[in-house]
Amino acid sequence: MNLILLAPEDIENHRLARVTDPRRLRHLREVHRATPGDRLTLGVLGGGIGQGELLALDDREATFRLDGLDQPPPPALPVHLVLALPRPRMLARSLEHATALGVKAITLLHTRRVEKSYWQSPELAAEKIHQHLVLGLEQARDTLLPTVTLEKGFRPFVEERLPGLLEGRRGLLAHPGMAQACPRGIDDPTLLLVGPEGGFIPWEVEKLLEAGCEGIHLGPRILRVETAVTALLARLF
Amino acid sequence: MNLILLAPEDIENHRLARVTDPRRLRHLREVHRATPGDRLTLGVLGGGIGQGELLALDDREATFRLDGLDQPPPPALPVHLVLALPRPRMLARSLEHATALGVKAITLLHTRRVEKSYWQSPELAAEKIHQHLVLGLEQARDTLLPTVTLEKGFRPFVEERLPGLLEGRRGLLAHPGMAQACPRGIDDPTLLLVGPEGGFIPWEVEKLLEAGCEGIHLGPRILRVETAVTALLARLF
Repeated sequence: MNLILLAPEDIENHRLARVTDPRRLRHLREVHRATPGDRLTLGVLGGGIGQGELLALDDREATFRLDGLDQPPPPALPVHLVLALPRPRMLARSLEHATALGVKAITLLHTRRVEKSYWQSPELAAEKIHQHLVLGLEQARDTLLPTVTLEKGFRPFVEERLPGLLEGRRGLLAHPGMAQACPRGIDDPTLLLVGPEGGFIPWEVEKLLEAGCEGIHLGPRILRVETAVTALLARLF
Repeated sequence: MNLILLAPEDIENHRLARVTDPRRLRHLREVHRATPGDRLTLGVLGGGIGQGELLALDDREATFRLDGLDQPPPPALPVHLVLALPRPRMLARSLEHATALGVKAITLLHTRRVEKSYWQSPELAAEKIHQHLVLGLEQARDTLLPTVTLEKGFRPFVEERLPGLLEGRRGLLAHPGMAQACPRGIDDPTLLLVGPEGGFIPWEVEKLLEAGCEGIHLGPRILRVETAVTALLARLF
C-alpha cells in the first residue's frame, strides 16, 4: 500500500478523510507502523494524488488531514488487454500485476482451453475483482481503476466485438511459435491478446490473425500467464 | 509442467525412465490426463531435451520409453540476478519467475530493509529452493538449474564479492528515482540488483553506485518485487 486510496465515502470534506475498513487500518498499524503526525501519500479514486497528515489512528478509524490532492496519477499504458480467463488464483495475481503496470482496460475471454468451471469462481464477483484492482492501484500509486469486461463466448467476441476494438488499435496476438518476436518500446494504441494455459487452439489463432492481429512470440520459453502478461507489457511499452 | 524433468535417479538406462514422486504422478494424471502411448516432452536435469512415450502409469510409477533426449535447452539470459531477500511467499514466486525466464545465477542479499526474520524462513532450505527452481524449469522447458547463493551481510558483499562480480559484467542497480530509464534489448553480460520492498536505503544506493553500478528505473510506478524482476528481465533482454 504505497498510496492510501480514498473512496468517495472515505472523504468527509476537502480537508478531512476517514479510513474505517479493517484491511487498511491493519496495514497502517502493522506495515506502515504509522503514528499521528506522520505524512503519507493519499489519492482519491479516479482523482488526484498528494500528501496527508495522520491525525489519529485506533482500531476503528484513521483520520487524515488532506493537503491538496492535486497531482495527476502516473501515465496509463496505451493497451487494452484481452486475457483468456486464467484459473482463479492466477486471475487475482494477473489483475494486480496488470493494474500495477498501468493497464486500464481488461477483457476476460472464454477460449477452448479455458476450463468452464473458472467462470463459476467467486473470484469473478464484481467486488472481488474490484479488490484486486485496488491492490494494484495502491501498489503503483495510481488512482484510475481499469474497466474489466467478461466475454463468455469466443466466437461472438471475434465476430461482434473484435472489429470495433481493432479500430485505431494495433492487434497483437501473443502465442508461442508465431513468426515475429514481441516488438520493443512501441507507443501505438494496442490490443494485446494472451491465451490460456495450454494456449489458443489453432482455429482460434487463425480467426484472430484473419481479423487483423499480428502474431508475436516471447521466445522458446513457455511462461505462466501471469509471468507472460508482465513480460509482454514490460517489453512492449 | 511443460517438460518432465528427469533427475539422475529417475533414469534406468538410456531407453527407460521411471517417475515415482507423488507430485509429478498427480500432475500427469490430473493435468496431462496422460494415458499409455502418449508422447510427452522430457528432459534430463543438466542435459538434453526430447520426446518419450508413456508406457505405463499407476499410483506409484510412470514409465517412459526415451527417444534421443538430444536437443539443447533454450538459451540462458546473460544475467546474474542479485535480489534483496523478499518475504517467503514472494521469494518462492520470484525464484520461479526468474528461473522460467532463463536466469542461471541468483544471489539473495541482506539489505537494511530486509526483515531479519526472513533469513529464518523454511523457504530458504536448500531442498525448498531446489523445488522452486525445478518448477521454473518445468514451466519453461529448461534443464539447467540456476545456482543460488545467500549473502547475509550487505557490507561484506559490496566490499568483497561485488568487485569480482562486476568484472566483465555491466552492473545495473534498479531503484526508483535513478536518472536512467531501464535500457531495452541489451545483450551485455549483466549484474542486475533489485532492492527489497521499501527499497535500498540511500547509503546502500551510494555504495553500489560507487562500486560502478549504473542506476536505472522502470518509471514512476512502484512495483512488487516479483513484478519488477519479470519486468526488468523482459525489458533488458
